[in-house]
Amino acid sequence: MNEQPDQQKEQTVRRIMLTIAYDGTNYCGFQVQPNGITVQEELNRALTKLLGTKTRTIGASRTDAGVHARGNVAVFDTTARMGGDKFAFALNTYLPDDIRIQGSREVSREFHPRYTETVKTYEYRILNRIFPDPTRRLYSLHWYGPLDTDAMQKAASYLVGAHDFRSFASSGFSSDSTVRTIYEATIKKDDDLIRFRISGNGFLYNMVRIIAGTLIEIGRGDIPADDMPAILEARDRSAAGATAPAHGLTLMEIRYPEWEKNSFQNRS
Amino acid sequence: MNEQPDQQKEQTVRRIMLTIAYDGTNYCGFQVQPNGITVQEELNRALTKLLGTKTRTIGASRTDAGVHARGNVAVFDTTARMGGDKFAFALNTYLPDDIRIQGSREVSREFHPRYTETVKTYEYRILNRIFPDPTRRLYSLHWYGPLDTDAMQKAASYLVGAHDFRSFASSGFSSDSTVRTIYEATIKKDDDLIRFRISGNGFLYNMVRIIAGTLIEIGRGDIPADDMPAILEARDRSAAGATAPAHGLTLMEIRYPEWEKNSFQNRS
Repeated sequence: MNEQPDQQKEQTVRRIMLTIAYDGTNYCGFQVQPNGITVQEELNRALTKLLGTKTRTIGASRTDAGVHARGNVAVFDTTARMGGDKFAFALNTYLPDDIRIQGSREVSREFHPRYTETVKTYEYRILNRIFPDPTRRLYSLHWYGPLDTDAMQKAASYLVGAHDFRSFASSGFSSDSTVRTIYEATIKKDDDLIRFRISGNGFLYNMVRIIAGTLIEIGRGDIPADDMPAILEARDRSAAGATAPAHGLTLMEIRYPEWEKNSFQNRS
Repeated sequence: MNEQPDQQKEQTVRRIMLTIAYDGTNYCGFQVQPNGITVQEELNRALTKLLGTKTRTIGASRTDAGVHARGNVAVFDTTARMGGDKFAFALNTYLPDDIRIQGSREVSREFHPRYTETVKTYEYRILNRIFPDPTRRLYSLHWYGPLDTDAMQKAASYLVGAHDFRSFASSGFSSDSTVRTIYEATIKKDDDLIRFRISGNGFLYNMVRIIAGTLIEIGRGDIPADDMPAILEARDRSAAGATAPAHGLTLMEIRYPEWEKNSFQNRS
């Protein structure tokens, strides 16, 4: 009965983590849903083709329709005996060219991309020039008027720390708590491009886009930068500015610092 | 007979210069042609709508299918009495969002965008990283392997000056002379993006893309940088490298330095 151990080995289930980049322009967001094509649907389809068996992913972040990603995360389980880092290359040959895996590795089977402590980083881009630029129209919000980036930075700095962000959440959120911790919130201007970067342990529904919309109104001089503490304090969506459009937003990175530090089980 | 001078004034024909940016992804190049939609066709259509009378442009540069532009140039004649700088704003409301006028001004009626001494600047972008980036896929060529940018710069420097560029021209060119003067040819690497910029008084058919393709082969180590003089010398297309794909190329700027210096007739 020499075959027994071999068969068992073949059926060992492993969990693979994927880092995923996509152009969100033509997708109804990341997560599978009945009305429209999503990134996750394409991902599941490509995996099923590659592995020859119905395979489903668990995603870390449900980005909205039109939002882009450099580093969303998903996991799937498989008995395939491919090197953990090889899935990225193999999967890319089955994906449409607006989705590209940026890396893959084996992780412990207990790892869950949503129930593990995370640091997420988003970037909102504003193209600040008189005329729109067609080659950057899909990945930034165009604004022709002057924007006071010092005021925007001042306002953004009030967000750092643990706060109740209810004023910056669209209705429809399902979280029990609306308290989140922001580690960093910076405004950088490089030629005609303003980049707002924000890192935190989590974000409420539409939170980054409502913060971006509020910062733009502050940049235009319609809201004083020093109103930011009062807007937070209000815990009321109507106290903040408009929701900025989806196409200016990119999910840059998701990190799992505690898990990365402690887990000796995650192999590349 | 008070109306006579007014009518005459109304019918004064003026020449307007446009600076045009576009995402070339969905166009069969700039110039009007029977098989497929071109940028110029959209431009003529928008002008005809705006002015209420059939209007045609004369373009400076026929970019190929898939090539982008930050600053192509075209002129048209009109009797409309709008401020020269106002056409840009008005036209943009009639154009699809992958074409955007970047500026407009009145010029002398003798000005011709092709028969005036020009300096054209092109940029070829290479995204040099292991995995493609979906949000930059439309505006750069992806290359995963190492590229020696010092060798590429060394080779590019041989191109500066007046040379016969027959080795870098696709068959199908109609120019009498294949001598062109290159003013600048630089390679810059910024993180994972390599930008090849080249300025000259004119370019043969596919010339920038063949130079870019040759530089990539030099960067990969397949052709020594010091072969560049011999490739020029050969005056034979087969001596140079492959033609790099269109989507990495952007026409950055067209300038008319002599005309800009001398013409007191060009009003804004």
